[in-house]
Amino acid sequence: MFQFQITAQDNRARAGIFSTPHGDLLTPVFAPVGTQATVKTLTPEHLKDINASLVLSNTYHLYLRPGDEIVRDMGGLHKFMQWRKPMLTDSGGFQVFSLAQTRKIDDDGATFKSHIDGSTHRLTPEKSIAVQENLGADIIMAFDECSDPNDHAYIKQAMRRTHRWAERSLKAKTRLDQALFGIVQGGVDPALRAESAKFIAALDTPGIAIGGLSVGETKQEMHDTLDVVTPLLPENKPRYLMGVGTPEDLINGVLRGVDIFDCVLPTRLARHPSAFAPEGRLNLMNASFARDDRPIDETCDCYTCKTFARAYIRHLIAAKELLAGTLISIHNLRALIRLMERIRAYIAEGSFEDRAPELLNQWSNNAKRNRNP
Amino acid sequence: MFQFQITAQDNRARAGIFSTPHGDLLTPVFAPVGTQATVKTLTPEHLKDINASLVLSNTYHLYLRPGDEIVRDMGGLHKFMQWRKPMLTDSGGFQVFSLAQTRKIDDDGATFKSHIDGSTHRLTPEKSIAVQENLGADIIMAFDECSDPNDHAYIKQAMRRTHRWAERSLKAKTRLDQALFGIVQGGVDPALRAESAKFIAALDTPGIAIGGLSVGETKQEMHDTLDVVTPLLPENKPRYLMGVGTPEDLINGVLRGVDIFDCVLPTRLARHPSAFAPEGRLNLMNASFARDDRPIDETCDCYTCKTFARAYIRHLIAAKELLAGTLISIHNLRALIRLMERIRAYIAEGSFEDRAPELLNQWSNNAKRNRNP
Repeated sequence: MFQFQITAQDNRARAGIFSTPHGDLLTPVFAPVGTQATVKTLTPEHLKDINASLVLSNTYHLYLRPGDEIVRDMGGLHKFMQWRKPMLTDSGGFQVFSLAQTRKIDDDGATFKSHIDGSTHRLTPEKSIAVQENLGADIIMAFDECSDPNDHAYIKQAMRRTHRWAERSLKAKTRLDQALFGIVQGGVDPALRAESAKFIAALDTPGIAIGGLSVGETKQEMHDTLDVVTPLLPENKPRYLMGVGTPEDLINGVLRGVDIFDCVLPTRLARHPSAFAPEGRLNLMNASFARDDRPIDETCDCYTCKTFARAYIRHLIAAKELLAGTLISIHNLRALIRLMERIRAYIAEGSFEDRAPELLNQWSNNAKRNRNP
Repeated sequence: MFQFQITAQDNRARAGIFSTPHGDLLTPVFAPVGTQATVKTLTPEHLKDINASLVLSNTYHLYLRPGDEIVRDMGGLHKFMQWRKPMLTDSGGFQVFSLAQTRKIDDDGATFKSHIDGSTHRLTPEKSIAVQENLGADIIMAFDECSDPNDHAYIKQAMRRTHRWAERSLKAKTRLDQALFGIVQGGVDPALRAESAKFIAALDTPGIAIGGLSVGETKQEMHDTLDVVTPLLPENKPRYLMGVGTPEDLINGVLRGVDIFDCVLPTRLARHPSAFAPEGRLNLMNASFARDDRPIDETCDCYTCKTFARAYIRHLIAAKELLAGTLISIHNLRALIRLMERIRAYIAEGSFEDRAPELLNQWSNNAKRNRNP
């Protein structure tokens, strides 16, 4: 279990197979986010149809609701939500950190108020692992502390705490059928990132996560940070860039040796209601789509694009019909999963680094909303 | 086209095949309602999976949004919403009547204000048919006037107007690939209903609708009205009881010779969030389901029941996840479609009338919400 076999390399980009108790993951992989044990508006059948392989769920949310003990008693997260392929849970650290006004972090852990009912809770490394063991995902995360990217002293303190918490998380872990990943922190400071990468690598976890990015830093800072971190990580373990990202971020991440990504972007965009399209990110509410009989993307093989015209989706949005969110989510997720499939194929044939500029160019229109489609 | 072949009879109950340009309908049939060209929260694939055969959409809503001309230009309703089986549109009469404060009805037609933006519109028999021809459903309805069930003078006036409008609707019709049904009105007055049934039957439309029921009358009044109307209708044409109903209403309607039904109940209940279950109508938000690992209905063959536990659906509801509405809609619709499948089988074997009391008893728990499951 948790073997990682690299099947092809193209400079720093890698294609591989990560074996889990719920099947093999082909990497690089993009994981849809199912925050509350559901990828919003989609059934597991939809996820299978778009060839999703790894689904992320959030420990913070499931701990609060329905409660990790209920999930355990219902047979664990895979059975509860009926996703029988690999799953990943985060540690809750990032969500707690995001509750800026209602949490207090100390060396032992974090106390916070629930966003649901204001009740007080405490997560520690030990508690986070216990919750994640109840949830039962294949890949679980060490409890970590994110930090304000502009506060250097805090970044250093949070990084060192994250290291101690990673050790405690490892010690607390009891299940053999879950892979615990340590998390590299250190903001955008190259020295701290190098220190963190070396520390976490030395823990010899079956995979390593890179946290604290896509939190306000520039793209250049993200790339520079990856350029510091990934060369310090062991080759034979998957690297997971947490909460990233946009199509460009995925391409740039793979170029720098990242294997696993997750992001709410495709499903969040879908509800706004914005779709990845060849001509750029489209706001499908725009009146110009009222009589547009083309699919969102003529080259896409998803159910939405094979079935419905933009005009219909535009009508659903205007009429406030929830099916709009379902149909756009299917397409947006499939678009990123297809991108990863293409990247894997390019790595396998050794052409990814050569083709990356073209891929980046194709996706550059999607960096921001196209207001005048 | 529009042949109706009765394949079995059991006293007044009939099983038959109604041929339409988009395929044969096995009757008795229950039609899910897709008000705005979508059965709320479901894809056409979901509808196929539950063996839906006829889908209703509302002329009033589609006329206002996206506009019937857009639907026509996008290839018609079947193509627009990608439902390639039979469809039915109502005339808009009932929705206009429901806009009590903002509509004015005269002998020529009805003027009303849009519920969307307050703009003023006018529907006449000719306009309703023109709109329905743009939409392109297989079965369309004559423009009719519903009436306040407690105002006898109005009921009589509305019935006579409905008769004149039925004649004008027939005259206005140009498409040969649509079956126009006349509508019997007359409130719960047996004499008026008899007059209306005879008048509409004489128009020789390929099917006949019974309107103005399930609008506040008692169950006994509904049954008595059907007992007056259906014996006066030709045997060789399908009878459509509009906007009805509950499982009991379906059984009682078939017993009285009705062939086609539609109702928003299953999908509306799903969003409330209430499910048809063997022990009665369940409000799945109830905390008693938090650890219930059974499906909604162990005897049900729908995707929801074959896949998910009540505990998971309860979690989705509590977490305000839209997937809950999708999953319960699938089950509630399948429950009524399965009921109709069973009724058709019982009619075929000549046992329906004998088994009806048992069926009614099975469903009696579902007449109202079960508050203490």
